[in-house]
Amino acid sequence: MDLNADLGEGFGVWRLGDDEALLGIVTSANVACGFHAGDAPTMRRICEWAADRGVAVGAQVAYRDLAGFGRRRIEYDPSELRDEIIYQIAALDGFCRLQDEKVRYVKPHGALYHAATTDVRQASAVVAAVADYDRSLPVLCQPASALATCAAQSGLRVVGEGFADRAYQADGTLVPRGQPGALVSDVDAVVERAVRLALVGEVVAIDSSVVECPVESLCVHGDTPGAVDLAQRVRSALEMSGVRLAPFVPLR
Amino acid sequence: MDLNADLGEGFGVWRLGDDEALLGIVTSANVACGFHAGDAPTMRRICEWAADRGVAVGAQVAYRDLAGFGRRRIEYDPSELRDEIIYQIAALDGFCRLQDEKVRYVKPHGALYHAATTDVRQASAVVAAVADYDRSLPVLCQPASALATCAAQSGLRVVGEGFADRAYQADGTLVPRGQPGALVSDVDAVVERAVRLALVGEVVAIDSSVVECPVESLCVHGDTPGAVDLAQRVRSALEMSGVRLAPFVPLR
Amino acid sequence: MDLNADLGEGFGVWRLGDDEALLGIVTSANVACGFHAGDAPTMRRICEWAADRGVAVGAQVAYRDLAGFGRRRIEYDPSELRDEIIYQIAALDGFCRLQDEKVRYVKPHGALYHAATTDVRQASAVVAAVADYDRSLPVLCQPASALATCAAQSGLRVVGEGFADRAYQADGTLVPRGQPGALVSDVDAVVERAVRLALVGEVVAIDSSVVECPVESLCVHGDTPGAVDLAQRVRSALEMSGVRLAPFVPLR
Amino acid sequence: MDLNADLGEGFGVWRLGDDEALLGIVTSANVACGFHAGDAPTMRRICEWAADRGVAVGAQVAYRDLAGFGRRRIEYDPSELRDEIIYQIAALDGFCRLQDEKVRYVKPHGALYHAATTDVRQASAVVAAVADYDRSLPVLCQPASALATCAAQSGLRVVGEGFADRAYQADGTLVPRGQPGALVSDVDAVVERAVRLALVGEVVAIDSSVVECPVESLCVHGDTPGAVDLAQRVRSALEMSGVRLAPFVPLR
Repeated sequence: MDLNADLGEGFGVWRLGDDEALLGIVTSANVACGFHAGDAPTMRRICEWAADRGVAVGAQVAYRDLAGFGRRRIEYDPSELRDEIIYQIAALDGFCRLQDEKVRYVKPHGALYHAATTDVRQASAVVAAVADYDRSLPVLCQPASALATCAAQSGLRVVGEGFADRAYQADGTLVPRGQPGALVSDVDAVVERAVRLALVGEVVAIDSSVVECPVESLCVHGDTPGAVDLAQRVRSALEMSGVRLAPFVPLR
Repeated sequence: MDLNADLGEGFGVWRLGDDEALLGIVTSANVACGFHAGDAPTMRRICEWAADRGVAVGAQVAYRDLAGFGRRRIEYDPSELRDEIIYQIAALDGFCRLQDEKVRYVKPHGALYHAATTDVRQASAVVAAVADYDRSLPVLCQPASALATCAAQSGLRVVGEGFADRAYQADGTLVPRGQPGALVSDVDAVVERAVRLALVGEVVAIDSSVVECPVESLCVHGDTPGAVDLAQRVRSALEMSGVRLAPFVPLR
Repeated sequence: MDLNADLGEGFGVWRLGDDEALLGIVTSANVACGFHAGDAPTMRRICEWAADRGVAVGAQVAYRDLAGFGRRRIEYDPSELRDEIIYQIAALDGFCRLQDEKVRYVKPHGALYHAATTDVRQASAVVAAVADYDRSLPVLCQPASALATCAAQSGLRVVGEGFADRAYQADGTLVPRGQPGALVSDVDAVVERAVRLALVGEVVAIDSSVVECPVESLCVHGDTPGAVDLAQRVRSALEMSGVRLAPFVPLR
Repeated sequence: MDLNADLGEGFGVWRLGDDEALLGIVTSANVACGFHAGDAPTMRRICEWAADRGVAVGAQVAYRDLAGFGRRRIEYDPSELRDEIIYQIAALDGFCRLQDEKVRYVKPHGALYHAATTDVRQASAVVAAVADYDRSLPVLCQPASALATCAAQSGLRVVGEGFADRAYQADGTLVPRGQPGALVSDVDAVVERAVRLALVGEVVAIDSSVVECPVESLCVHGDTPGAVDLAQRVRSALEMSGVRLAPFVPLR
């Protein structure tokens, strides 16, 4: 099982989350590439730290929207979106190269992540970018999503991820943020759900039904108060349950 | 002898110069990487065209300054400048990769080009970026400059370039823009100077002295009225004088 | 009758259209405010020229999207959109103030213009911005639109505009760009439609029905080849038909 | 005596300092205007809070440099710098207007503040912007500086400010950051220096000489750990010493 988190999401003087602490916990780092957040010195530093610790680096690609942190949907021309994603993957790859490493996977950020769940045009743009740049790169995304389908159809490896701190609907999709119960805030519940997702590949949905949810990675968050502690507790519980934690791609 | 020009210097809806026409004339394309100009679809398109025509692609790296087109000096922290240059080279490399090609050289743009002529800190930042990213990449710059010295000391290949449409001082440096006579506007004079630079490696300075100026590349401009015609005339004159035109780096 | 055009839509070194020529033709200038295009020196210069020529200055407010020229829809939080519109109106007002003038009206640009035609949330954000900043400012928009309705309900003056070079549907809305016949390219037809809109307030729709279209302003475009000539022909034809051209707001 | 602090220096999702706490302490708020930091919703909110509390709002004008937080010097064309400053003042004025208030003064930020201390070209650009926009606005700056001289010569009101937490040289200028002893970190010493500056208008320089330093405002910082507590202690000490705290401009 893999643990992933969003990292490097500051910009210039502004910081968000505790990148260094999280790099001691996760096995995969979704690194911001400068479009919704992220600057060159931070990208370099995280790639150094990740290489030192055997953490896989993935490109957290996003809309060009620093002011909105990539969280508001933009109606891109698909070919422009594709090319902007290639630009971001390649820029991050440059800093991996300095560590004799490479970008290991691609994960869309924020509004692009959500758009690619249902919008085939935007999902296809993500897939086209990865296919153009490096067909061997897996796409990290929600299992039941347009992006997962589209990537699989194009022959890309799809890595499904689960969220222990988000409520699920009976069909395996997430309860949208803003709806009651969308977030699981009880720490013990989050930890328990993480272990069940990792060991059994299932989760209890908001209607109490048990949903199959086969995931290869669990996403932990880093930018909320207590986030690092929670991530550490999830990791410890997984290890104590006998779950072996490792990136979903073998590193050099 | 190589002919280079700045290309891809639009941004979004805005265009500058006739990229496609120039790609039929030059042997090396200094492609804007998104910091002073340049967007992902344009970078992709130029890399495609360049690969089709056997034109070498270089990274035209610049300060992060779209509003100033990279033409105003910025007092960067050197390590940040270095990392932003790596980011730009790598991003462009991603589009070269789509053509089974790679970035072939690095040339600083605008105010960074000028700063690196005399400022050792900024020159060193450019050199550090290239050395970190790919030590095999030549640096295209003015022969008598801090950047040329600094790159040579670090073991990088230095490719000197000449300007047929700029006046030189007796010490081999350019007459600064804004001073009388800084620009050579007579077309025949420009063509003649280009041929002499290419064949003999010398130029007549503004004080009428003859200056040695051993260059491997001549820079032609693309964003002024009549620029494409002038570039074509320079190319034709060079060919008729028996100068063989080719990139200064062998392509695959 | 008023003639309006988009002006000041360059950014830094990049130019778009012939601002000075258009300022000799139109009676109202929709000035870009820096979010989709427009820089401070250009805003200042256009406000000077406009004041000299008795042309009314309006704020052409837009999404924050230089890379997309404000042409791709963004799902803004409405209160953030409202505040960004206030920011833009106020910034332009600063340059009007230098001429003892003021912003005279507000017109949304590009994707915001289109969104506000049907999307009540975004239309309301535009209206809230104007109502907050200066309730006396008219909103220049399409007559049959969510924005027109919403602005009228809030007690703002609505100024309807017509497009002589766009095809209309029978219900008074425009044929969407991209559909066959959406653009009227025949110059004589454009001129004739302009005169009919101005004199009679009606237009022949794409299904040959005659549609009532009471407008106080006609929009001419400035960024296409031949645009200035066409605008001049429209103006001349209107004047020869006895239409008095003047801004829809009295200037000082 | 006035107490001023930099406020609103976040951008989008990123925050810096505790704006609300500082607004309960200071009498003047230097509000970021979107060029080095600051977004429209934050500008609006701070103007609301400031109006509620009788805090004067000043425009904290800066270079266009979000990535560098306005802290690196840029060689602007002076007329462009002037116009960009006007743009910023005017944009902030729009949010003051919503409170029936107005921008009350102008203070340059970061590298522009430092450049304007000695560089007459950039100092003149700041002065020209204020003179063009509203000659009644005071300039808040260092007493012994090119900007103070230049503003006074142009007939603008100059408001000198002091820094209780910075070391001074015998000539009344600050010890540059990075030199030993540049920062006064002992809280009691800072408080004592603030009181002496306010009551007597003098400060003990780094060479132990006593320097006259007639100031109308003291700058407190908000973005370092413990900053709010220190600002509160300075305020309390000033009040207990009988110093009346009020903006240096009368509000409506």
